[in-house]
Amino acid sequence: MNSDLSDTKTLYLQIYEKFKREIMEGIYSAGQRLPSIRKTAEDLGVARNTIEAAYRQLLQEGFVSSRTGSGYTVEQINLNEGVFSKSVDESIEAFGSRERQLILGTQKPLRSYKYDFNHENLETDAFPCDTWRKLTSDALHGVEAGGASCYNDNQGDYLLRLNIVNHLRRSRGVSCFPEQVVIQAGTQASIQNLMQLFDPQVDTVAMEEPGYSGARLAFEQSRFKVIPCPIFQGTSFYIRSLFKSVAKLCYVTPSNQFPTGLILPMQARLQLLDWANTTNAYILEDDYCREFRYNVHPVPPLQSLDAYHRVIYMGTFSTTLSPALRMSYLILPPELLSQWKEHFSATHSSVPWFSQVVLRRFIEQGHWEKQTRRALAHNKQKYEALITALNTHMKGKIELIENGAGLHVLVRVKDGKSQDELILMAENQGVGIYGTNQYWMSESPGWESPVLIGFSSIRKEDIEPGIQALAKAWFG
Amino acid sequence: MNSDLSDTKTLYLQIYEKFKREIMEGIYSAGQRLPSIRKTAEDLGVARNTIEAAYRQLLQEGFVSSRTGSGYTVEQINLNEGVFSKSVDESIEAFGSRERQLILGTQKPLRSYKYDFNHENLETDAFPCDTWRKLTSDALHGVEAGGASCYNDNQGDYLLRLNIVNHLRRSRGVSCFPEQVVIQAGTQASIQNLMQLFDPQVDTVAMEEPGYSGARLAFEQSRFKVIPCPIFQGTSFYIRSLFKSVAKLCYVTPSNQFPTGLILPMQARLQLLDWANTTNAYILEDDYCREFRYNVHPVPPLQSLDAYHRVIYMGTFSTTLSPALRMSYLILPPELLSQWKEHFSATHSSVPWFSQVVLRRFIEQGHWEKQTRRALAHNKQKYEALITALNTHMKGKIELIENGAGLHVLVRVKDGKSQDELILMAENQGVGIYGTNQYWMSESPGWESPVLIGFSSIRKEDIEPGIQALAKAWFG
Repeated sequence: MNSDLSDTKTLYLQIYEKFKREIMEGIYSAGQRLPSIRKTAEDLGVARNTIEAAYRQLLQEGFVSSRTGSGYTVEQINLNEGVFSKSVDESIEAFGSRERQLILGTQKPLRSYKYDFNHENLETDAFPCDTWRKLTSDALHGVEAGGASCYNDNQGDYLLRLNIVNHLRRSRGVSCFPEQVVIQAGTQASIQNLMQLFDPQVDTVAMEEPGYSGARLAFEQSRFKVIPCPIFQGTSFYIRSLFKSVAKLCYVTPSNQFPTGLILPMQARLQLLDWANTTNAYILEDDYCREFRYNVHPVPPLQSLDAYHRVIYMGTFSTTLSPALRMSYLILPPELLSQWKEHFSATHSSVPWFSQVVLRRFIEQGHWEKQTRRALAHNKQKYEALITALNTHMKGKIELIENGAGLHVLVRVKDGKSQDELILMAENQGVGIYGTNQYWMSESPGWESPVLIGFSSIRKEDIEPGIQALAKAWFG
Repeated sequence: MNSDLSDTKTLYLQIYEKFKREIMEGIYSAGQRLPSIRKTAEDLGVARNTIEAAYRQLLQEGFVSSRTGSGYTVEQINLNEGVFSKSVDESIEAFGSRERQLILGTQKPLRSYKYDFNHENLETDAFPCDTWRKLTSDALHGVEAGGASCYNDNQGDYLLRLNIVNHLRRSRGVSCFPEQVVIQAGTQASIQNLMQLFDPQVDTVAMEEPGYSGARLAFEQSRFKVIPCPIFQGTSFYIRSLFKSVAKLCYVTPSNQFPTGLILPMQARLQLLDWANTTNAYILEDDYCREFRYNVHPVPPLQSLDAYHRVIYMGTFSTTLSPALRMSYLILPPELLSQWKEHFSATHSSVPWFSQVVLRRFIEQGHWEKQTRRALAHNKQKYEALITALNTHMKGKIELIENGAGLHVLVRVKDGKSQDELILMAENQGVGIYGTNQYWMSESPGWESPVLIGFSSIRKEDIEPGIQALAKAWFG
């Protein structure tokens, strides 16, 4: 099964590279159309899926463009009189076959599905391009544009921080000074910076089990030992294992536990704060998805309940605005803030001034609030379409794990098939669903570990046929 | 002397905060002018410098705007019906005085000079705002804008990497595949990512002594021990101490040693490569400033001479385009590339898609080359103005350390005054020059350690009067 998979990958890469080469060598020239996916699939005798994946990779890399109904058109690629194709040959000669293999042979393949139930990307046209274009233009006009020529405040643009603080105060009850906000380039970058204030020789990190593997990876890349605290045995067991962990920092997703969607009850929130206060530890509250709750009432963030100054609050613009923007923020409690300032006093921020001043305007002029409201309404419809489709096509055959919030649900199939089998069966029907094994650290949860069905990037109208195709893949 | 300095800082911050508060409370309303620097200085009985620093901080944070000849005008700050001022009070109540001190009391002051001989920032209007605005607009039109809604290639946009490779091949003789390029968010971020592939328990890092303290900090923040290898005793001493260091990685700036401007001779380059090959170590070649050479011929980068695949090449867009863009790149040799891909396979890039696709267009359409050529010509004029001014006003009294390249020169004053004294004397005449003690690790170079006079951000016409003021400050 695995070898089938890797064969497909190789094939896709071969096809992608064939077209890339032909475009660069001018065999396909600018404005010309690539043969249709159907035709190429027939010519080469491979699945249309594979061709589509190759074309989408070319599209993503800008070799071709695509307009609905008119296929893929080769772009004008200005490589300065074909210097590249000559020099590639020279470069190739400079490397032995082993080096060439190391460089070219390990490209990450792109999988492509007719129905992709991804939970991280947003819909293709979700980004407010027109507004962003206008605000960028505003930011680059006038005196303030001097910021484009120098190193700027390494905690982030002050007015952006002020706007974030105001928004959080109104929408989430988070209370802090703009001085406590640090603009960051995403969750993983935030964690890696934050962990510089801790000592991997002494301090350990506790995480929910199951939990967000992207965060765990960032802790591990910072060389910290991560201790899993199981959440499926109830909150008091969870709190007990937290005490037993002797961790210096606990990473939590209380408003929407990843990946289960559980909401940490008020009582457990207070116990968590008590744990931090008692053991002199910190809590990293990742509030990555508070906006998207459909049938549940919000619980106040830990940060707003924290009388001990032990909570680090982390937020992101990836789920409501764009994961391509790479913008997030940390809100640091006083003691840590003071350490942060000292530690990073001579370190440049890695977040561009450009993104910051445009985002500031975006929030200031009310666009973020509008965007979030719109996304909530839209995602609620998609959530309901997904639940309805699952109940219609799979009733009695699956167990649904979801809590009326977030951008995915978990599904357990009751017939003993493994995650890998379920994913492959789906893939063969052009349906992308995702495994959850990587979210567990300590145990191999076996058949009980559910698959993840996301709805952040799929179009609303594709949900019903997608789930129908999935039901066909799984249950015939 | 130090207490004088910190008094000045406190004053500046107090004034900045007074105006900020008054703007936010509406005492100054949008469109109104702040009192002139002269008037405020007289009213408050403090130096105009201090007021200017406070105003510039307000300007930088967007509270005011400034047009030549018309002073500082208060900006429209949309804080959603004054929610902020109310909530600030609430926030303040939530914190004890110790916490408040930790949060508000440690702000980094901004120094401001009439003549600022900074070497990192660029001139205020150096950034090609119009072109950037247009290219951003292009990038956000059309089908490719789908990239704005998803996580993108974590090595960076492929066509951007291709364009960088082509540019490097033409201009620097660097030879590699686009697959070897990793787009990064600046030198320090690059180093922190790169060092994840090494082990701080076992591996050490060798650095030139003196050397770039920003890089050293990044190594130390990654928890690596850094070993200084002195460069002032000649290259064979340098190479010997490198062998003695038993380092696993050596950070070098061969095309323009920081801060001395020395160029590593060809013979030493080959010895360096030999060291890496013999000891199975890597060389991190920071080619941060190759473009700016005025009287010297370029020596080929180590990367282009490296038959052993031991050189990691690092480049930046900060010196030629904008430090606010936070864009740089690494070129990895095959073995490390393969490790990198494995290690970061589940890590998101921290460089926004937006910056990448705009920068790609900027290079593709020839703007980067034009920009670099223009900057070279302009910096050459500034370099010559600086050398002429130093010779005119300080002949015989100083020793000049420079090598006809880069964006600064070093100056030793022959009268035994300390760096701190020289800097303070300059400051009192409104002239900003910079210390170099932080570039030394092992010894305290005492009076021999020179001061740094940069010319990247000062206007050409300010160089002569600035040096004249400096001569007056130093020699009366």
